[in-house]
Amino acid sequence: MSLNSERTTVRREPHRGVYDRETIHAILDAGFVCHMGFVHDGHPFVIPTSYWRIDNDLYVHGSSASRMLRNLAAGLEVCVTVTHIDGLVLARSAFNHSVNYRSVVVLGKGTPLETDEEKIAALRAFTERLAPGRWNEIRYPNAQELKATSVLKVPLTEASAKVRQGPPEDDADDYALSCWAGVVPFETVVGPAERDPKLREEISAPRYVEQYSGPRR
Amino acid sequence: MSLNSERTTVRREPHRGVYDRETIHAILDAGFVCHMGFVHDGHPFVIPTSYWRIDNDLYVHGSSASRMLRNLAAGLEVCVTVTHIDGLVLARSAFNHSVNYRSVVVLGKGTPLETDEEKIAALRAFTERLAPGRWNEIRYPNAQELKATSVLKVPLTEASAKVRQGPPEDDADDYALSCWAGVVPFETVVGPAERDPKLREEISAPRYVEQYSGPRR
Repeated sequence: MSLNSERTTVRREPHRGVYDRETIHAILDAGFVCHMGFVHDGHPFVIPTSYWRIDNDLYVHGSSASRMLRNLAAGLEVCVTVTHIDGLVLARSAFNHSVNYRSVVVLGKGTPLETDEEKIAALRAFTERLAPGRWNEIRYPNAQELKATSVLKVPLTEASAKVRQGPPEDDADDYALSCWAGVVPFETVVGPAERDPKLREEISAPRYVEQYSGPRR
Repeated sequence: MSLNSERTTVRREPHRGVYDRETIHAILDAGFVCHMGFVHDGHPFVIPTSYWRIDNDLYVHGSSASRMLRNLAAGLEVCVTVTHIDGLVLARSAFNHSVNYRSVVVLGKGTPLETDEEKIAALRAFTERLAPGRWNEIRYPNAQELKATSVLKVPLTEASAKVRQGPPEDDADDYALSCWAGVVPFETVVGPAERDPKLREEISAPRYVEQYSGPRR
């Protein structure tokens, strides 16, 4: 199923545009920080914020007191962009240098979750997405914390992905040049867990920390 | 020297706001892909694109034919945001979970570089930033390619950084809980170089590929 619209059709390098739901979901699920764009007083603003996906909705959360969240809750239009950088593409000509990446652009409006039950279910899904099992180990949000937290969902009804992978594509004549060409790949890895210095000594790291398998960027 | 303005003052978690030029430059120099926000027909758009810094200007480039670049060249206001995700902060309460990150938000307008000499100097600086020595090995842009490439600079006169690092900060009562707390750190590493399958066998990887030391995200 395509999530595309006229506004989300990839215009530059249109062969890189991808519109099926599976690809868009997979790119979203590989990350947890998006860049959210909105218009305030006619000016563009782009703020990094965490996100997660449940079914065909994207979720963001934040302080109920924040300007961004208040504006979003009031129905402000947003553009949510998620990008994974996979490598530097070194071509034989300056012009054909490129970047390997996977990105998704979502256009839409946020709807605030109204009830505590809805908020808790969404926050639980986010926590479990990052660290399966953690929700049952932490202190749940109390009434005051829930009130201070806005959770919004943006439907994934108008979205597109753009993907570039693989080696450089040089002009035919340039393949004769004596210049190295290829890709310098990047990967985000998990370092050794850093214990809170205030953590009691007898508490050892759970499996979801020792073998972290959630999104990394 | 501060690059701050009223519009770039960090409002949420104001203690995380950083405004000195050195910090802002260091965060920008650690990356090469930004998220550029702009307003088109009243709608917000956020597009990932590569960037680089020279002195107190940020540069972006792209196809002269692209809608985004044409609008930028015409003086459209932009918000350029650069974010590095350093780790997942696992607190004892759901509410105090966080992310370690370094981000910069730049507000301003782009000015197109007019002459071929200016464009070439800027593109050379970008290439050398990523791969020192490569500019003298590749085929330089020809007249047609230069014409097809727009290079814009955005002055770093209105910018702020926001940084969170370190362990979780829990509520006093929560330190008694038997829950692991700490940081799962992320790092972007360089994988083994992937040679272009069409690369002639006798061409070996240069030092800037074998020991890549440029920005990774």
